[in-house]
This record gives sequence, C-alpha cells and structure tokens, in this order.
Amino acid sequence: MLKGGYWGKILWVDLSSEKISEGTFDEGFARKYLGGVGLATRIISETVTKNTNPLGPGNVLVFATGPYQAANIASAGRCAVAAKSPLTGYWGEANAGGHIGPELKRAGFDAVVITGRSTKAVYLWINDGKAEIRDASALWGLDAVKATAALKEAVGDAKAAVSCIGPGGENLVRYACIANDNHGYFGRGGMGAVMGSKNLKALVTRGTLKPPVADADKLKEVYKAILTRAKEAPFTAVNAEHGQAAAVVSREENGLLPMKNWAQDNWVDGAAKIGTPRFTEELQIKKWACPACIMGCHRKITNPKYITETGGPEYETLGMIGSNLLVDDLAAVVKANDLCNIYTIDTIELGGVLAWAFECYEKGLITKEDTDGVALEWGSGEALVKMTEKVARREGIGDLLAEGLRACVDRIPESKPFAVESMGQAAGAHDPRAFFGQTITTIASTRGSCHLHGFAEAMELGALLPEIGITEAIDRFDATKKGYAGAIYQDVTQFWNSLTWCLFYFFSGVSLGDEVDILNAITGWDVTPAEAQKIGERIVCMQQVFNLNMGMVPEKENVMPERLTIPHKEGGAAGQVPPWQAILKEYWETKDWANGIPSKAKLVELGLGSLEAKKALCVVARDYKD
Amino acid sequence: MLKGGYWGKILWVDLSSEKISEGTFDEGFARKYLGGVGLATRIISETVTKNTNPLGPGNVLVFATGPYQAANIASAGRCAVAAKSPLTGYWGEANAGGHIGPELKRAGFDAVVITGRSTKAVYLWINDGKAEIRDASALWGLDAVKATAALKEAVGDAKAAVSCIGPGGENLVRYACIANDNHGYFGRGGMGAVMGSKNLKALVTRGTLKPPVADADKLKEVYKAILTRAKEAPFTAVNAEHGQAAAVVSREENGLLPMKNWAQDNWVDGAAKIGTPRFTEELQIKKWACPACIMGCHRKITNPKYITETGGPEYETLGMIGSNLLVDDLAAVVKANDLCNIYTIDTIELGGVLAWAFECYEKGLITKEDTDGVALEWGSGEALVKMTEKVARREGIGDLLAEGLRACVDRIPESKPFAVESMGQAAGAHDPRAFFGQTITTIASTRGSCHLHGFAEAMELGALLPEIGITEAIDRFDATKKGYAGAIYQDVTQFWNSLTWCLFYFFSGVSLGDEVDILNAITGWDVTPAEAQKIGERIVCMQQVFNLNMGMVPEKENVMPERLTIPHKEGGAAGQVPPWQAILKEYWETKDWANGIPSKAKLVELGLGSLEAKKALCVVARDYKD
Repeated sequence: MLKGGYWGKILWVDLSSEKISEGTFDEGFARKYLGGVGLATRIISETVTKNTNPLGPGNVLVFATGPYQAANIASAGRCAVAAKSPLTGYWGEANAGGHIGPELKRAGFDAVVITGRSTKAVYLWINDGKAEIRDASALWGLDAVKATAALKEAVGDAKAAVSCIGPGGENLVRYACIANDNHGYFGRGGMGAVMGSKNLKALVTRGTLKPPVADADKLKEVYKAILTRAKEAPFTAVNAEHGQAAAVVSREENGLLPMKNWAQDNWVDGAAKIGTPRFTEELQIKKWACPACIMGCHRKITNPKYITETGGPEYETLGMIGSNLLVDDLAAVVKANDLCNIYTIDTIELGGVLAWAFECYEKGLITKEDTDGVALEWGSGEALVKMTEKVARREGIGDLLAEGLRACVDRIPESKPFAVESMGQAAGAHDPRAFFGQTITTIASTRGSCHLHGFAEAMELGALLPEIGITEAIDRFDATKKGYAGAIYQDVTQFWNSLTWCLFYFFSGVSLGDEVDILNAITGWDVTPAEAQKIGERIVCMQQVFNLNMGMVPEKENVMPERLTIPHKEGGAAGQVPPWQAILKEYWETKDWANGIPSKAKLVELGLGSLEAKKALCVVARDYKD
Repeated sequence: MLKGGYWGKILWVDLSSEKISEGTFDEGFARKYLGGVGLATRIISETVTKNTNPLGPGNVLVFATGPYQAANIASAGRCAVAAKSPLTGYWGEANAGGHIGPELKRAGFDAVVITGRSTKAVYLWINDGKAEIRDASALWGLDAVKATAALKEAVGDAKAAVSCIGPGGENLVRYACIANDNHGYFGRGGMGAVMGSKNLKALVTRGTLKPPVADADKLKEVYKAILTRAKEAPFTAVNAEHGQAAAVVSREENGLLPMKNWAQDNWVDGAAKIGTPRFTEELQIKKWACPACIMGCHRKITNPKYITETGGPEYETLGMIGSNLLVDDLAAVVKANDLCNIYTIDTIELGGVLAWAFECYEKGLITKEDTDGVALEWGSGEALVKMTEKVARREGIGDLLAEGLRACVDRIPESKPFAVESMGQAAGAHDPRAFFGQTITTIASTRGSCHLHGFAEAMELGALLPEIGITEAIDRFDATKKGYAGAIYQDVTQFWNSLTWCLFYFFSGVSLGDEVDILNAITGWDVTPAEAQKIGERIVCMQQVFNLNMGMVPEKENVMPERLTIPHKEGGAAGQVPPWQAILKEYWETKDWANGIPSKAKLVELGLGSLEAKKALCVVARDYKD
C-alpha cells in the first residue's frame, strides 16, 4: 500500500477517441520506477516501437511528477515529460521547472499519459481529479505568452499552471520545447513538436488536494536540517543573485564554454559582455523562482529597455546562442532567447544548428542566396535574431534548420565536422575537453548529447557521492575512473530526475543521503543510497533498451563529435582531449553493457528480465502491479 | 522548346508559409523524366532525405500528370501522386484514375508540388492557371463522399475534380489513400496520411485550357488505328462488362488468388460467390469510366439493396479483403470496400493487415480482450466491417493495425510469418507461386510489394514487348528469364505510369510501339521504344537510389515473404515455388545493380551521375533545365 508521496493514480487521455480514463499503480511499482522520467520510461517502453512515428498518433507523451511534490520541498518544483524524440528517433525526455509539477500532483495525479492525436486543436484541462479535452481552435497560432494568458483566463484561475506550445511546436520544429508559465521550459528532444503533432496546444493544470505524506514529523525534522544547510551554501547565494549567467566568465576561463562552434580557444571580452556582473546590472535582473525554491535561478529582466515577459537567458542559452556564435551583443541574445521562449524552441539545439549554419556560411557551403540575404557572420546578433524567426516559421532555409543537425548534414555531407552532436542531438554548453567527466554525458546519454544525464563534471568540482563510494574528486584532465563516474552519476541523476528533484541543490550541499532521507520520510520506505542508485540504474538501462529497440547501434552513435577530438591551442583547456574510447569502454564495463548492450544478467538483476514480454497491443489505462 | 504534351509549368505550394509560386521545365527535362511518377521522383529526390519524417512538414507531396493528358487519349485519364511513404519510410507512389489528371492538366499545370504543413485544415483550389489555399475547417472530419460534394459546391462547379481524404487520412492511418471523385483511388503507400499530416483535406482542380499538341494530324491518324484495335480486343469487352471482378474465379483456378492469408489452396465456392457472374448480376453493375476511357473498369453498384456512392470492389479488393480473409459474404465485402472508400483506406494493405490479425487470432496471439470482443474468425464479414471501422478511427487495436504490418510484427514478434509483405508494404493479390513473373513485382518494386511496378505476369499471359526483345511468352512455372523480364517490365511500366497511361490497355492489344507513336505525335519527339525503356529504367533507378538514401539494405528488404516460399499442396499452382534468389540475382544483373546498388557506370549512362550534387537547401519553385 502506498503510504505517502503518491496518489497511485495515472490519468490516461486518448486524443483520437477523446477517451479519458484512470489507471493505478501499487507500491512495488512506485519503488521500482519512482516517478518523473522513471515512470515515463516504464510506460512508453510498453508500446512505442521502432515503427512508431514520433510525429504520428502512436507516439506516447507522458508528463510525470515525483514523490517529492507531495510535500512542498524546495528543489522539487520540477516535472518530467517524455516521448519518442522527433529529433533523434530515440528516447526523448525533458525536465523542467515551473508550476506544472506541483499543480498536477495537487490535482490528484502522479502522471498523465497522452496517446493518439486529435484532428482539431485542443487543450487538456486537469483540475482537482477531473480532466477535460477542450477546443483550442482560437488559440492555435498564438505565441506561448499570449496562449498562457488566454488559457488562464479560459479556465478562470490565474494560479493554473500552463504548459503550452507556440508556433515552433505547431510547426513541428523538431527541437520545439514546451513553455511552463513563461519561465520553465521542457527544452530538449522536441517534446513541443510531439504536442504539435497531436494538435495539443496545452496542458492546463490546477490542484488544491494535499497528497499523503507517510511520516510528516520525520520529514519536518530531516528537511529542516537540509534546508538550513542549503541556505548557507555559497552556491545558493550566487545562484540567487545572478542565476546561471554567473558561470559564463569562469567557464570561458576554464575552457568549458563553447566558442565559435567549439573551435575557438578564448573569448574574454565577449564573455564579460554577456556574463555577470554586466548581465545582472544591465538587465536589472530579479529572481523568478519555481514553487518553494530558495534559489530562484530563473531570471526576470526588469530593465525597460529589454523587458520581456519570459525568463531571461540562462547559462546554456548564453553559451549556445551567445558564445558559440560569438554573439556578444547582449540585447540580441536576450531578444533571440525571448523569441525561443514565445515560439517554444530549444535554445541549446538552436545554438548547435546555427553554429553549423554560420560555419557553413564561412566556408561558402551556404550563401546569401540560401538565406534570403541574411549574412550568417560570426558575432552577428542580427543574423541570430532573423534566423530564430525563420526556424520558428520554417521560412526558407529555416525549414531545413528546423529539422535538426542530422537533416542539415544529409543536405550538405561535407559539413559533417561542423555538427557537434551525439545521437542527433546537439551537445550542451559543457566542453568535455575541459572536464573529462563530461565525456559520457556528451556522447552516451540515453537521450542524445546532454547536460543533465550524468554530469560527472560535478565530481571534478567536488560534488561527491560518498554514500556510494565516490569519495574524492579527480582532476578534470585526469581520465582515471571517468567512465566509472560517468556511469554512477548517470544513475544518480536519473534517480534525481525521477524524484523530481533539481540538480542545483547538489551544489548547495544537499547529498544523495539527504535526498534518500527525504524520500523515506515522505513514502515510509527504507530506501538506501545503494538502492537509490539501483533505481537510477534501472531507469537508464530501460532507456538504453528502448534505444536499442529503436534500432540504435551504440558503437555508431556513442561517438565523440570530431570537433571535440581536436584540442584547444590556448585557454583553460589548452592541449587537452579526453581519451573518449577508453572512457566509453570503462563506462560500458561498469554498466555491464558490452558494446552498449545490457547483459541478460544485468536485466534480470534490475528486474527487467520480463519487460519485453509485457508489450501491450492497445494503449489503454491499466493498473500496474510490480 | 516544348512543342506539345506539356505546359512546362509546375505549381509549387508551400503550406507552411502559404506561398504559391510557379516553376518551369524545358524540353530536355521533360524528355528525361516524362511526367507522372518520373517527374515526381526527380523533384522529391532533391530534398527528401533519410531524416525527412514522412508525416512531418519536410515531406514533399507531388501530384503529376503526363504528356498524354494533353490530347483526350483513352487510357490517359490517370494521375500520379508521390512522397516519402509513411508506411514504409521508402519511396511512396500511387497511380489512379478519376478526373484529377485531365483537370489539373487543363488548369495549366503539369504537376503540383506541395511542401510544408498548414497548421489549420485547408484545401487547395486550382482553376485555370490560378491557385488558392482555402480554409477547410468546416470540412475536416467529413468522409470522402460528403467532402467531395461539399467541395464541388464550395467552388461552384460540379465538374471540378476532387481528390480528398476522409477520416483515415486525417487520423494518419499509414495506408490511407486519396479518393478521386469517389471512384478512383490513389491507393498505396499512405499518400492520404501525408495529406492528413499536412492538414490538407483536398485538391480541387478544374481547367478549360487546351494543352498544345505538336502534330495533331499525326496524332489523329496514329490514335485512330490504335483505338480501333483496342475496341475490338476481347479484354476490352470483358472489362467493360464485368470490370476487374471477372478475374476472381479464373485466378482461384490458376492459384493466383490469395486465400486465408496466402495459406489455403482452393476456394471454389467462395470465388463463385464474390466473383463474376454473380458479382455483376447481384450488384446490378454499371460501368463508371475515367475520362475518355472506352473500357470503364470502375464499377457502379445499382442494386438498391447494396447501393453506395463510391466505386464497387475491384479485383485487388475482392482478393485482399475477400478471399484472403475467406469472406464470401458479398454484402460484407461491398460494405467494407465502401467504408474504405469513404474513410480513404487502401483495401490492399487493409486486407494484408487483417489477414495477419485473423491468423494471430486463430493462433491465440490476439484474443477478444484485445479486439473489444470482435471474433476475428476466417470468413467473418462482420469482423471485416467492424475492424475497418476500428482502423479508420484508430479505436482500440485499430490503432495498432493502422500502423501497418511491420508495426504489428514489432508488437508480436512471433507473428512474423503471417506478415506477407516486402519493404513493409503488403503484397497485392497476385501470388508469385502461380506466376513466377510476379517475383520481382512482389519483392523488388521500389515502392514495396506491388502489383503495378513490373507485372511481368503480363509476359506469361502473352502481352509481350517485341519492340525491345521480349518476343515470346515463357511458361508461368518456368523460371527462365524471369529476373530479366522483371527488370524490363518494371522499366516499361514506369514509362507507362509516367505517361500517365493505364496498364489495362496493354491487354487490349496496345503495344509499347503504339504508346511511343502517340507520345511522339503529341510532343514532336522521335522517342524509340528503346529510349522509352531507358526513360523507365532511369525512373526506376532514381527510385532505387532514393530508397538507398533512405537507408534501405536491398539484401534485407528484397526478400520473399516466408509464407510465399511454401508451395501450395493443391490447386492451380500446386507444388510450385519460384526460385526467388536466382530470379532476384538475374534482375540485379540485368539492371547493373550488384546487390541492389546501381553501379556508377549505370548512373552515368542514365544521366544521373550528377544528381546527388543537385541537392537543394530550400524547397522552392525552380526552373528545370536538363
């Protein structure tokens, strides 16, 4: 019996038949798959196959909360969304802040599973145990800011959380994101395009129910100590004051920042222009926190010169559409970021794609004839803004760029070296040449190149996992144990993403042990850190099996992009290149995945031995027991 | 300069930007790619890549007419449509009668290229040189009969040709077809789903312009003699009286008819019930001819007991949803055929998929729990009708069946032997065990298993090509030269499909030489039968290159379905199995495609050496010179 942390209820919505139903799950199921991406992986793996068109009715879109959202925990204002990715054709997943996680939970559901495809524009309204498919014809075509306002008005509740798509999602830009209340974004893997393909404009959620907590006193006691520690951590203060923009200057120095499509060594003046303190001062930054968060890393720009209604650019954005294009024009970066927000486009992917296009332009492979006269010159804020518009509208060459890096390279084969991606997804702004711990995150994340799955850079920075044997930091240029760490941190981050917990708290002194203590207080379980890792390992393994079922050949896909095998000549990471093949080998050995294929013994150990046999013929609400 | 047969004008419609423009082509281009599928292949190959999602905005949908439609030639009332197939992921193409071909041509265009994706329901209205994208919100959801009537009314012209989709296309059934004026159907490869994915309800075309003819006197002279001969041919009379249903009984006898998912040997009583003469008498059949046709093989059912507003079942339909399911209930077959017509679903593919499902049911792999209680028993007309509804609406297991055979097998791996398909497309109702000449058509057509590409069964029946060296019939159970004939007939049928000419006239004594004579009179060219074959060979080769670019491995895809390697025990083809590997080898040798890969020398010979270099970055109207 579920004692706390869960309702044990999943909402199933089939847009084709307009059928809405409820399914349940039991404690065994919850402890095995936890929530967030774990829960989503379990459900999607059942019916999505190699033949499922990610933009067809057969794709299954899951929004899932985790056990933390039961209890008003700082760091738990997040939610996960997953489906087969239209960008990569493999596992697609995004995790974001905003209000949807807490509101969905308080509405009485742990997750929503959306199947089929409406043939007319609709939105889904979920409110205190009830759900309704509503007409959205009048909203189709609206940008995310306008749609959010209109939807709050339509449901008559300003506190309703709105997760919606703008024209990028409607136009099936393959890396369209989903906007949560204009400041949290389900960024990666094109989840917004999946919504667009289903003619689903938005999820609007609102709840006032109070989910059960197994041991409220214990939770209070455990949480108080952790919160005190987190409040005192230096990272909390920095993040609260500057947000993620604080990282730009230091990462230019240590070589982690991508510059000129990952080919330039230094950019001191540029970093100073788009990073802090200028960023904070010039934009007159204010905090914009997720529910219950004590950091508030999202940014509200208040300088009327720049003012936008969406969250300001964060580190990944400043890196990918700023430094990676050498755009030091802060106003242009802010503008393009705002366009991405209102059109719902992933800034990381856009930065990777535009860097490819800028380099093609430099090399004469793309000319002004192809771009309707726009000069794609390094550093051009004008080109950045114009191309963002073109991608969202699929106008001219924007139609090709909207298809992602692999489609671009298919059109200009000789540009392959300019596409810095793995599994078809652009690398995030964390150069593995600067932190070898990022190798696995860059090339062997289950959702394609990533910044959130693994992040063993944390270990190099001293954020350790003593509870499960990661007791000392290893120098960022030392390859020792980096494959091993890549595996362990991947397990742990997927445990966290399934909670659904915010990674930033890990840098504010909150440990794996702390997280487990909170989880146990909420659920009444006795999970150990080792079991926590095993839960994460199970989820990662299921995602790998999913990818193999989609036809992935790990040896072909888990490959370091050529550009990142060439060492920098100068700067903070001069002369360094991680021995990625050796790291990958160690990673696979740690996982017991020879050449990326999980062994049968491993599947059995993780309780996944019979998963394949469970394939369902129809996607319908069901009651899970495990 | 184009002297006749062409306007040299292509209409380009981008649904994303709502931009409409015109492009041109010159005589060299026309003589190289001809029209119909040839023209479509050339255009689609330019921009569609492995990464193009067939249901995404990047897919390019081409409707193309041919030079014959200039001149009111019987047999030329056809049109081609092509795109990347959402069913197979490879080359997708359908050829059909109806009014769209002639009307589009008389509207002043040789072809229409449709790119992008409207985010709201629209239809395209093409009328005497003008084109317009119009709102179709009110029509979305209507079946093809209702939509056709509404659209004729909307444009205020009962003579307008309507090519539209019903709910099958809107719901992205991967084998949705396109209905032409309720009696011609672009059946195969899911072209209706491509329209659905673009939110394009219909093309409505009307024209009163008279395309140029190079030598009208010569045409009159040549055509008169040919027409006289065709009128006198026995096949013309049979087809006029009974339509294609006439073939059911004889093909049950000779073993060509699929029975019980290709596993039964005889079905004498059943064939008599759904075939002629009962078919003609019971349904009180009337002719329903394409424009200018002297045969009129399409059927109008006039018995008020059965009456429908769409064309009656034809041979492929009677075979695939009749005999292949052992359904001898003519009323049920007529009903299911009508549902397919109004919902726009390919009857061939549906028959292949349902036969798979019926066999799974028989073997206990699918139960009543999966089918909402419908018993999928061999011969059940009720199950046939109910499942047709379920597929169109993607209801319950219909959602899986709507995805096609490969998706079905992915869900139940042990059912692979029940899926009689090649390249993911179900085999048409022509058993290669009965006519070895059908081997290549079944397993090595560029659009997947087929009945129209190649059809070297014709040679076995005595329809020869003496102009290019096919001078004698070879027995249907003799494998000699069947790979060679498979190659030659494939070239010739793609020449014909590009004209766009109806294959039935070949059985009414109209020869390749006749066709070339007509073509030359219309265009003013001096094409020889050898050049005609070369044109066809070029088109087939381009389609093969397209498929290779999509990732096809010919040795894995061009494989005889296991079921068709098991000989019948009795009946007209007892004990016979074509040596398909040897036939395939000879086919590839004839083509100069080692293992299915065209040699460089062959590409150069066909003038395709530089095609790859021509890849365009943006899909826009262009002027073709060749």
